[in-house]
Amino acid sequence: MGFYQRWRQLRFPGLQTCGLHTAAVPTPPHWLAERFGLFEELWTAQAKRLASMAQKEHRTIKISLPGGQKVEAVAWNTTPYQLAQQISSTLADTAVAAQVNGELYDLERPLETDSDLRFLTFNSAEGKAVFWHSSTHVLGAAAEQLLGAVLCRGPSTECGFYHDFFLGKERLSVFASNSRCLWRAGFHPLANRFGTQVMLLSRRKPANSHLSRTVRGSELPALERICQELAAAAQPFRRCGMLVDLCRGPHLRHTGQIGGLKLLTNSSSLWRSSGASETLQRVSGISFPTAKELRAWEEWKEEAELRDHRRIGKAQELFFFHELSPGSCFFLPRGTRVYNALVAFIRAEYTRRGFSEVKSPTLFSTKLWELSGHWEHYQEDMFALQPPGSDGPTSSPSDHSTSHPTDTLALKPMNCPAHCLMFAHRPRSWRELPLRLADFGALHRAEASGSLGGLTRLRCFQQDDAHIFCAPDQLEAEIRGCLDFLRSVYAVLGFSFRLALSTRPSGFLGEPCLWDQAEQVLQRALEEFGEPWDLSPGDGAFYGPKIDVHLHDALSRPHQCGTIQLDFQLPLRFDLQYKGQAGVLERPVLIHRAVLGSVERMLGVLAESCGGKWPLWLSPFQVVVIPVQTEQEEYAREVQQRLQAAGLVCDLDADSGLTLSRRVRRAQLSHYNFQFVVGQREQSKRKVNVRTRDNRRLGERDLTEAVQRLLELQNTRVPDAEEVF
Amino acid sequence: MGFYQRWRQLRFPGLQTCGLHTAAVPTPPHWLAERFGLFEELWTAQAKRLASMAQKEHRTIKISLPGGQKVEAVAWNTTPYQLAQQISSTLADTAVAAQVNGELYDLERPLETDSDLRFLTFNSAEGKAVFWHSSTHVLGAAAEQLLGAVLCRGPSTECGFYHDFFLGKERLSVFASNSRCLWRAGFHPLANRFGTQVMLLSRRKPANSHLSRTVRGSELPALERICQELAAAAQPFRRCGMLVDLCRGPHLRHTGQIGGLKLLTNSSSLWRSSGASETLQRVSGISFPTAKELRAWEEWKEEAELRDHRRIGKAQELFFFHELSPGSCFFLPRGTRVYNALVAFIRAEYTRRGFSEVKSPTLFSTKLWELSGHWEHYQEDMFALQPPGSDGPTSSPSDHSTSHPTDTLALKPMNCPAHCLMFAHRPRSWRELPLRLADFGALHRAEASGSLGGLTRLRCFQQDDAHIFCAPDQLEAEIRGCLDFLRSVYAVLGFSFRLALSTRPSGFLGEPCLWDQAEQVLQRALEEFGEPWDLSPGDGAFYGPKIDVHLHDALSRPHQCGTIQLDFQLPLRFDLQYKGQAGVLERPVLIHRAVLGSVERMLGVLAESCGGKWPLWLSPFQVVVIPVQTEQEEYAREVQQRLQAAGLVCDLDADSGLTLSRRVRRAQLSHYNFQFVVGQREQSKRKVNVRTRDNRRLGERDLTEAVQRLLELQNTRVPDAEEVF
Repeated sequence: MGFYQRWRQLRFPGLQTCGLHTAAVPTPPHWLAERFGLFEELWTAQAKRLASMAQKEHRTIKISLPGGQKVEAVAWNTTPYQLAQQISSTLADTAVAAQVNGELYDLERPLETDSDLRFLTFNSAEGKAVFWHSSTHVLGAAAEQLLGAVLCRGPSTECGFYHDFFLGKERLSVFASNSRCLWRAGFHPLANRFGTQVMLLSRRKPANSHLSRTVRGSELPALERICQELAAAAQPFRRCGMLVDLCRGPHLRHTGQIGGLKLLTNSSSLWRSSGASETLQRVSGISFPTAKELRAWEEWKEEAELRDHRRIGKAQELFFFHELSPGSCFFLPRGTRVYNALVAFIRAEYTRRGFSEVKSPTLFSTKLWELSGHWEHYQEDMFALQPPGSDGPTSSPSDHSTSHPTDTLALKPMNCPAHCLMFAHRPRSWRELPLRLADFGALHRAEASGSLGGLTRLRCFQQDDAHIFCAPDQLEAEIRGCLDFLRSVYAVLGFSFRLALSTRPSGFLGEPCLWDQAEQVLQRALEEFGEPWDLSPGDGAFYGPKIDVHLHDALSRPHQCGTIQLDFQLPLRFDLQYKGQAGVLERPVLIHRAVLGSVERMLGVLAESCGGKWPLWLSPFQVVVIPVQTEQEEYAREVQQRLQAAGLVCDLDADSGLTLSRRVRRAQLSHYNFQFVVGQREQSKRKVNVRTRDNRRLGERDLTEAVQRLLELQNTRVPDAEEVF
Repeated sequence: MGFYQRWRQLRFPGLQTCGLHTAAVPTPPHWLAERFGLFEELWTAQAKRLASMAQKEHRTIKISLPGGQKVEAVAWNTTPYQLAQQISSTLADTAVAAQVNGELYDLERPLETDSDLRFLTFNSAEGKAVFWHSSTHVLGAAAEQLLGAVLCRGPSTECGFYHDFFLGKERLSVFASNSRCLWRAGFHPLANRFGTQVMLLSRRKPANSHLSRTVRGSELPALERICQELAAAAQPFRRCGMLVDLCRGPHLRHTGQIGGLKLLTNSSSLWRSSGASETLQRVSGISFPTAKELRAWEEWKEEAELRDHRRIGKAQELFFFHELSPGSCFFLPRGTRVYNALVAFIRAEYTRRGFSEVKSPTLFSTKLWELSGHWEHYQEDMFALQPPGSDGPTSSPSDHSTSHPTDTLALKPMNCPAHCLMFAHRPRSWRELPLRLADFGALHRAEASGSLGGLTRLRCFQQDDAHIFCAPDQLEAEIRGCLDFLRSVYAVLGFSFRLALSTRPSGFLGEPCLWDQAEQVLQRALEEFGEPWDLSPGDGAFYGPKIDVHLHDALSRPHQCGTIQLDFQLPLRFDLQYKGQAGVLERPVLIHRAVLGSVERMLGVLAESCGGKWPLWLSPFQVVVIPVQTEQEEYAREVQQRLQAAGLVCDLDADSGLTLSRRVRRAQLSHYNFQFVVGQREQSKRKVNVRTRDNRRLGERDLTEAVQRLLELQNTRVPDAEEVF
């Protein structure tokens, strides 16, 4: 009998009402029975309460549906699911939860009063969250059943879900130290009503054990199979077996709504990333309403993996990472080419748009960060250091009167305070405003090593960071300028994007009237801009409202890169002033803005978005020259040199061991935008025979003209040079 | 009676044989008389010895003079000065010392044996050193006389001399703590012969006193006056007054050879930069054989000060420094323009010359620096840090399994180890060589704060740093390439330069035969290169021979910026290998090279060299548009936008409060390469009226053509765009 089957038989008589939670507990401790009794008591009380409410308040209530339709329902009796069935059976099948007067409801929770009702399906972000939250319960149940896991957290994520659990020293010791076990009293739909009263045991850290068992990758298929069986059983999400899992929900109506589920990864994790020594096990997965959707996702995922920027970075020799500088990227010649092309692009925009590039230092006294407030709020994420020799006198070979500085120094995590020093270094006049200072300085942030991943999160990176110091009445025009900047850059890069206005959070600093004005200015600018935008009330920074920018890459994945943030606080902290037109000192407004965001990260996003097929102007594989025979090698070399002298990337494939067609194929697999084939004919006429990476033959071109055309296409940054050559 | 006169009268009877050292000592301590006696004893003995030698060895010796002339002299009797008189009275007057068989001699020290004799004048570096060394004794004597100073060190420098001394709590306490006083028994010419035997008292640190008096700037004129009087007195450099100053010399024949002397600065200093708390006083000065030379120097100095890059940097708003980031430069928009133009220039050369730009991280584990050897040799000059959270677990808001790194990290002081990692990150083949990796990465070095000065020495800077990995048989061609690179860049920048081959030092590492070959390769490359070069035997680095490059700016001042260094050690330490043509693993040779050196420093050198009159391609003041009347302001603005859109720097001076000629003058004082004056006539014809910064009127030009011409001149980096426009 297999491992999994043995576990499935370790069930308690009388506790098998629910197939979902089937914890294997050889000797349940006494408090378990006590808790179970308490749960039953509350459950019965709640059922009674519901029945009595239904009887006492048996009245008709009005439910407004989306689209304006109004229906009647019975208070404390009619459920959203019943209403969905009235509308259409498809809706009833695909709905995952309801939103009732803004509150999330389980579909089978009775409506209580007149309500606005909206159904959530898997197609919305909120619907996905409910769906994946429910799925993680299935994973938890399977882990308990198969592995005897002590369940910890199990949240939904942006793209699926995971469950953390503790496996103890060996499988059967689950209850050995009950007081340290993490139990959650969760049931549905009562938890929503009982609130925290049912928190029988609070969340605790699992037992400290250095010998804790781990989940092996080979166990994932068995775990997945149980998940699938549990889903197929279409069990309700309710207190099951011995487990009382405190969970507000909402949940799906039953596990059967999960049509496709796949487990993805296993890893170790720490209790709430606390840095403690206990190790939990984390299993992550994804699920969908239908098996078909799961298959589609798997295909998409495969494509995305092919496009993973780390894979492309390695295959194309763009960059690599090294353990001697964790979190920092080594850009090889080709990666540096892409990097510099991106920076040159933004520089050209800066020139066009009246931004002035500056260069500020990397190391600053922590006094600067105290002044800016970063030291108070951000210290943990900064690299700080004592300058050498600050702990005592040192002898120096130079014959000057010397001493080392003694201030603690820190590597800058952002450029804004340095730009404030630049603004403040001499008196300023209104004539100088708006002053737009741009800086590509290297920024360092002490990201935790576990959060590092490729170019997505680094400890060292550069931004296309600029700060605009302007008068309040220039704000709107500047915001419009920033939005236009974003749009033109993203258009060239081939990204669509969506904007969101984040307004004042609860703990905002500064004058409410200033915030009112600023939010109105941002809103006006957004409206004039003409692109769709969302409102995110309360999502602004404490120092000012902002416009978040979510771009979408070629695989429709969202990335947050650009930002436009107002800041009322830094000008105050640095006491920035300028002489206004009336001769009085006034305080400028500060706008933080970036379009690419981290250049490194953008390079990764672009690599994935184009799948390694770089547009000509960014491409580290612009042209390869292929001589037909060895006799043309010299001419091919000359062609290469002509292109290189013009600043184009041009390689030569003179490998006479391979046929012409094999070399053309190789060039296309390497994604060279163009292949210039040169045979005897081309050589004698000083021409090149042009092919594109999608194997279109453009025919003979004069060499000089071809170089000229490439430069034109490069300088205008067209996305489709191969089409329009 | 004035302060100065009172001091001059405080002399001891019988001790006034020499006017030079006239220490004011009210109550000389008992050991002083003892030392004085000892000196007299030795002096007499030496005089006797000389006389006896002259008598005993009264023989004729042969002296070879420069140019091949041979003369006869009497051993232990004839002095170089006597021979100089025989040659010419001018030589006798201008000679400052003699070189006898390679050893420096006072002019009045008798010759002993057959010798090669060379006279040193002020015109040689060695002559200047003797001259300024002697001058600092005059300064010391004056300081003792005027201020009651306890003399410490007084060396010559590259451009003058200084003297450090201790002033005690009050002037008359000079001998209060004799055991701590610094006395030097120096006399001439005996010290040369007695060597260290006469070191009656060794150099000691002066007394610890936090109340020590300082030299005030207002005291310098009086001090200078005494120096001049002492010089005018034409005293020999000998034991004088109470002072026995141990000094090997050589010295001038007498103080009268100092025709012009000027004191320059006063500052505090520390005993040999020890970082101890005692403060010494330092006075620096300069001196010349004639008053006329001093005046010429003063004029040159004035010009140099006008050209001081710190002054230009401030006046032109190129950059500034801030106490919150000592040793790092804040480049303002105009400075960044120059900076980026320099980097773009080198980038263009990289493209032309087959260098590949890369980007390497800034922060590395100290394990890298241990591997490269920097940790052992250079640790004190590196900024090292513990990553945050490495001293214990921290809680992180992110929900990942995370831990901070625990390796000590250090900011890179140079790029070579990172480039070695890049070479080593995958197997390499001979086909890839030479691999030329270039990097503009920010470097950090913990320079002592006292040694920081403008852009000359910084804690944070970037280099046009490249490392060439090549096969041994490629070395010569690569060195030739490096030399050619240097020459073309310096030609564009308007610098002449001089090369020096530095060969193996005594403690060199590696195989002598490898060194032989490498030195021969460098020598051959230098000879083929055709520019004059010097040999500096033993001046190479321990890891390889090198070519030092000294460039000369427009004021003929030398700067060491570029370098070409061979390195046999790093390829060993990083175990770098490539598959050779024969299929066997071989070790590459590494060349470190830079042309600009620190870009920051080069920017400073260039600012001084052009005196703020930047060549067009580097200029942050390319064009200013000046409308004749307010009616042309709109057209002027259009002209400005046309130029800016083309990537040129163009300002507008539409200040209608000033006349046209005043605005033209203002533009020329600001060193705008060109002024585009636009009146009604120009506006109607869409032209501009071009003037240069040296006020030449080039007349009307079509706007489009003018923009085109400016771009051409900028792109070809001509030094004299104003001449050839």
